[in-house]
Amino acid sequence: MNTATEIQGTHISQQYHVELDQLRNRMIETGGIVERQLSDAVFSLLECDSDLAQKVILCDDEIDSIERKIDEESYLIIAKRQPAAGDLRLVLTITKIIRDLERMGDESAKIARMAIKLSEELDSRIGFVEFKHIADRVQDMVRNCLDAFARNDVVAAIRVVREDTNVDMEYSSAMRAMATYMIEDPRCITRVLNMMWSLRALERIGDHAKNISEQIIYLVNGRDIRYEDINQYVSELML
Amino acid sequence: MNTATEIQGTHISQQYHVELDQLRNRMIETGGIVERQLSDAVFSLLECDSDLAQKVILCDDEIDSIERKIDEESYLIIAKRQPAAGDLRLVLTITKIIRDLERMGDESAKIARMAIKLSEELDSRIGFVEFKHIADRVQDMVRNCLDAFARNDVVAAIRVVREDTNVDMEYSSAMRAMATYMIEDPRCITRVLNMMWSLRALERIGDHAKNISEQIIYLVNGRDIRYEDINQYVSELML
Repeated sequence: MNTATEIQGTHISQQYHVELDQLRNRMIETGGIVERQLSDAVFSLLECDSDLAQKVILCDDEIDSIERKIDEESYLIIAKRQPAAGDLRLVLTITKIIRDLERMGDESAKIARMAIKLSEELDSRIGFVEFKHIADRVQDMVRNCLDAFARNDVVAAIRVVREDTNVDMEYSSAMRAMATYMIEDPRCITRVLNMMWSLRALERIGDHAKNISEQIIYLVNGRDIRYEDINQYVSELML
Repeated sequence: MNTATEIQGTHISQQYHVELDQLRNRMIETGGIVERQLSDAVFSLLECDSDLAQKVILCDDEIDSIERKIDEESYLIIAKRQPAAGDLRLVLTITKIIRDLERMGDESAKIARMAIKLSEELDSRIGFVEFKHIADRVQDMVRNCLDAFARNDVVAAIRVVREDTNVDMEYSSAMRAMATYMIEDPRCITRVLNMMWSLRALERIGDHAKNISEQIIYLVNGRDIRYEDINQYVSELML
């Protein structure tokens, strides 16, 4: 190989790593936007802030267009650079994670739409305690799974997967409470239904945080635990 | 190149095409399983057939494990064969479609779980008409999007995307009817809620059929219409 070709080779390889880093950073940035969108959606519902809710709904388009860009960039990296095993896994994982992020954005927009409906209805705070409680836990899950990705932290990712079981249990119990409210006072049925859809959206966001965490475990340890018992996996890790 | 290397090259290339075809066929087969699972779930709910519902729930594990296998095979094809642009797009599209199919399976299992709950409650057919009506349309969407994939048929895919708007409208109207039933007779609230979750699952399956159709359009025409107005795209196509 002559020097010119060598320099060109190094240049291409540097350029490739810049592209990979950009992709990774762009995904982390998108995570930040989604995290903010969720906290705004939660705030708008709890504080009956329709203006903020409107902003959350508009922000959803932005996330959609970022997803599309990241998808196209990933495709180009694979097609042009033919990344080796580890890098290929990273790129494919990012395309999956970005889809979960985009869906978290969709669910946050749903919460914002419910916030607007709830703010228009008669004053009642039925379900707000349950909503706030689950929202806190889900927001932690989202933050922790994004941190886990940034730090390749399998243990943190496992914690998020486990936390999803708790959120699911709290969600079921909140839903039973909502049904009881409706039976006790049928006049509030429409309102409680809107709260149920908001709780449902939170629970879905928790599922997406779990999906992302499972992807991180796969990325770092090469193990697909999606359909395995997480406790079984943890005890194997500890051996 | 000597003859031995040539023969080896042809062999590798043939092997590669066999792998691609296998991947494609396996996805189409999985589509068939999911289609059957949905129709069984719908039947089990409408006919209060708990045994069949139980089978649908068990089948979900099978679909999960197929998804995992297809995911791994796609990864290996990209890593080992470094497919060129068109084939790469096909492989990446298949990994996305398989994820939507797996989620359709999840939603069918949800319907089956609701079918069991509904069959245990007092005899009432509230919401059955709405459910049957939407189920028919969604089942058509699923069948048509799988056919569109098998035939690379963009026009059929566009029809599925458009049909999703109609299903969404019917879903909203059915949900309003359910709320009215609850207000009229609060004793049936729990039952109607179960029917609402079943309707919701149908609507989600419709969304996944739409996602798959958008992927087909992307695969065949290279155009990502996910966040575009479908009518705008159709009028461009006709120009």
